Amino acid sequence: MNQEQLIVTMAMQAWETQIKRADQLFNALSDEQLLQEIAPGKNRVIYLVGHLAAVNDGINSILGLGERQYAHYDAIFLSSPDKAKEAPSVQEVRDAWTTTIKTLTERFSKVSTADWFTRHLRMTDEDFQKEPYRNKLSVLLNRTSHVAYHLGQVVLVKSR
Amino acid sequence: MNQEQLIVTMAMQAWETQIKRADQLFNALSDEQLLQEIAPGKNRVIYLVGHLAAVNDGINSILGLGERQYAHYDAIFLSSPDKAKEAPSVQEVRDAWTTTIKTLTERFSKVSTADWFTRHLRMTDEDFQKEPYRNKLSVLLNRTSHVAYHLGQVVLVKSR
Repeated sequence: MNQEQLIVTMAMQAWETQIKRADQLFNALSDEQLLQEIAPGKNRVIYLVGHLAAVNDGINSILGLGERQYAHYDAIFLSSPDKAKEAPSVQEVRDAWTTTIKTLTERFSKVSTADWFTRHLRMTDEDFQKEPYRNKLSVLLNRTSHVAYHLGQVVLVKSR
Repeated sequence: MNQEQLIVTMAMQAWETQIKRADQLFNALSDEQLLQEIAPGKNRVIYLVGHLAAVNDGINSILGLGERQYAHYDAIFLSSPDKAKEAPSVQEVRDAWTTTIKTLTERFSKVSTADWFTRHLRMTDEDFQKEPYRNKLSVLLNRTSHVAYHLGQVVLVKSR
């Protein structure tokens, strides 16, 4: 394993660790718990699961992996706060989370090591020359922290 | 900038992003807010700040950076749940967070690029040969997600 492969493996493991934890947590929560707020007056779990599905689905565009499947989730779970728009059913949002992860896993596996170090699609070539660390792999690192951030919130509903 | 330097820069930026967000949030919260629970019956903010100070301070040992400064925080903020032991004052815990970050920043700056790719001190040489991606940089990635996780919780106290 050369140094670049090693780094991609590291970043991918950090991502998978958070995704696995989130997946296990969401599966352990009942539909009723998904409709609960994480704290009084704060987002409901269903909103956060839909939000994570939307943001993770958006990785497809940023990394040029292929078509998005849940672009319509952005309006409900990204640009609007919870309860502003009618959310899909709990089961549908659960499915969106699972489908999004499944698609990303398949598509990530086809990204070559070298490609992870190329610019992501929200950057210009010029900016990338100045800031070469803003590559595709850095998007994965940021999205990993994003999952962890909301995971720390959803866990509050467990064993309440 | 060679590929290895690039990766260290990426991981360091991901870390700094979360630390900066946490630092700004903690500074924006009043002492009273630090004594509030993030949700009814859950950890208080002061516990989470102390917990982050303890875990981040522990990075010194895992990476062999030098002496820990807050090893005594482990008993209060790591191996015990909130309220089980008497916590230090809010100001003391704020200072612990700040000091820990300051020390890590100084010590991280002295770690050579090559050293980031060596095994961390909780691994044997033998294990490291099998799993070479479990290096010092992977500890940084995991601790970055750990900060994000609790940051998502502390933010719940803001504008409540």
